[in-house]
Amino acid sequence: MKLKMMYSFLNSDISLIEKKLEETIKSESILLQQASLHTLQAGGKRIRPVFVLLAGKFGSYDINVMKNVAVALELIHMASLVHDDVIDDADLRRGQPTVKAKWDNKTAMYTGDFVFALALELMTNIKHPLAHKILANAIVEVSVGEIQQIKDKYRFNQNLRDYLRRIKRKTALLIAVSCQLGAVAADVEEAIHKKLYRFGYYVGMSYQIIDDILDFTGTEKELGKPAGGDLLQGNITAPALFAMENEAARKEIEKVHAKSSKADIERIISLVKQTGAIDKSLALSDLYLEKALSILEELPANKAGKALRDIAKNIGRRKF
Amino acid sequence: MKLKMMYSFLNSDISLIEKKLEETIKSESILLQQASLHTLQAGGKRIRPVFVLLAGKFGSYDINVMKNVAVALELIHMASLVHDDVIDDADLRRGQPTVKAKWDNKTAMYTGDFVFALALELMTNIKHPLAHKILANAIVEVSVGEIQQIKDKYRFNQNLRDYLRRIKRKTALLIAVSCQLGAVAADVEEAIHKKLYRFGYYVGMSYQIIDDILDFTGTEKELGKPAGGDLLQGNITAPALFAMENEAARKEIEKVHAKSSKADIERIISLVKQTGAIDKSLALSDLYLEKALSILEELPANKAGKALRDIAKNIGRRKF
Repeated sequence: MKLKMMYSFLNSDISLIEKKLEETIKSESILLQQASLHTLQAGGKRIRPVFVLLAGKFGSYDINVMKNVAVALELIHMASLVHDDVIDDADLRRGQPTVKAKWDNKTAMYTGDFVFALALELMTNIKHPLAHKILANAIVEVSVGEIQQIKDKYRFNQNLRDYLRRIKRKTALLIAVSCQLGAVAADVEEAIHKKLYRFGYYVGMSYQIIDDILDFTGTEKELGKPAGGDLLQGNITAPALFAMENEAARKEIEKVHAKSSKADIERIISLVKQTGAIDKSLALSDLYLEKALSILEELPANKAGKALRDIAKNIGRRKF
Repeated sequence: MKLKMMYSFLNSDISLIEKKLEETIKSESILLQQASLHTLQAGGKRIRPVFVLLAGKFGSYDINVMKNVAVALELIHMASLVHDDVIDDADLRRGQPTVKAKWDNKTAMYTGDFVFALALELMTNIKHPLAHKILANAIVEVSVGEIQQIKDKYRFNQNLRDYLRRIKRKTALLIAVSCQLGAVAADVEEAIHKKLYRFGYYVGMSYQIIDDILDFTGTEKELGKPAGGDLLQGNITAPALFAMENEAARKEIEKVHAKSSKADIERIISLVKQTGAIDKSLALSDLYLEKALSILEELPANKAGKALRDIAKNIGRRKF
């Protein structure tokens, strides 16, 4: 089943979100609008808006309220990608040139600032003080994570805990917050919105681990960028960490630097695969996925819960 | 009279703000903390916190509420400076190396993001939805202004209106919002907090015009950076615009580019001074200052109002 089929009952609301995303980034600055639209149209699964809306279905769902949270969370995600591409010197994302590649680093910096500001503006339509606290705390954490990410690059003596903390901040937190804020905005009681937060956190962890696996196992066509990009950029992810338990693999991985040749990276990717690191990483992702699914059991049974389960499974087992 | 003497009745609250600024930027990321502290300690007049507190004195002033707004506004200002120094390729600010110079552009980008996120976190302590709306709208405007600023560089056929719109977004808006939010957080009625907004706007315009004049008339020691920096960076300000009414001066100014020599810039500065552009710029600043002072007449008479008047005059007539 395709991802979109899992929440077809949201179809008209999702179209509305897509329209509102485009409307929101309209600006008198043509450059800002073009750069933002470019990022928006580069695609993405809009998984955060979907989570916001589904979480809202556990309470009093009003699309005119929910849309603000859904669009805001997608914009915050977009803003962080635009800034991340500056850090990563990334020229491609989802097969499209990044803002920093198509324009430059400065434009990327200000496009990120602008898109982020728009998200804040939308959030002011949400009256729940708790929603603002949750979001602001998460954003601080994410921003600390962004700089830690730089420090961790090419640091080969890091451990799995460092990695997990990094992907929590990079991915899981904002997905967790998407689930929680969707619920808070729909007046869902605390016990439930906290569980939705944990669901989102676990799904986010599983999602990012899979993403990091795909960077080793995917083809350039599937990834929209060459495989092994994480390694080349010094981003030490689960597969590399598990592979480094093997001394021979460790020695090779530790030689990686920003100018490593494509052939070297390809050789190391095969090496990583031979160590069984991919299976270990998959098992780690599954662990989080199982936790996510088990929390859903504790939630009221409804079609939103069923959709969340289907999406979680799809994400945890996706091939690209 | 020195600036600080004008609001000596706020002394203990200002010390508290200074302490809270330092506390707030503490982070597990040593790099973020150092870069933030560096920016904080580079100084500045803390004029935004002072305006927040003084505006609060028109209502029910509770320092435990006010301090959140005061610190948040200073942090937002700091964050925008850190990002601006990336755009301007500025190595010095207030005689100190900038974050982008002492570290690099990426660190500056993330330090800005981090400091900004901290400000948002503090603002969540403010319950007034209106305060959040006002702030978010201003931040969107400021971020649009930042990118427009790049487009306007070395664009010599711009007019005074372009310039005024630019300094509104760059400076006046956040000062206006400081005044208004201080009042809103202290439950001041709408008629008054709107006047405080306008007061702040006019003072901010006057302030920035003076700043732009000083870039022509100040010494390197006074400015903490070489004079003529704006011109060299293609930032066309009031003195340059007035000078360009003179054909000979216009021809010279239009030759300026990023690699213009120090001697060329110095020659053009003298030329600008000879055209009478400095006096015209001062008159423009005075116009805004008079507007600011006249609004104060409409406010309830109290010592905060007197302090605002003294500060406005001091700012409008400062020598550096």
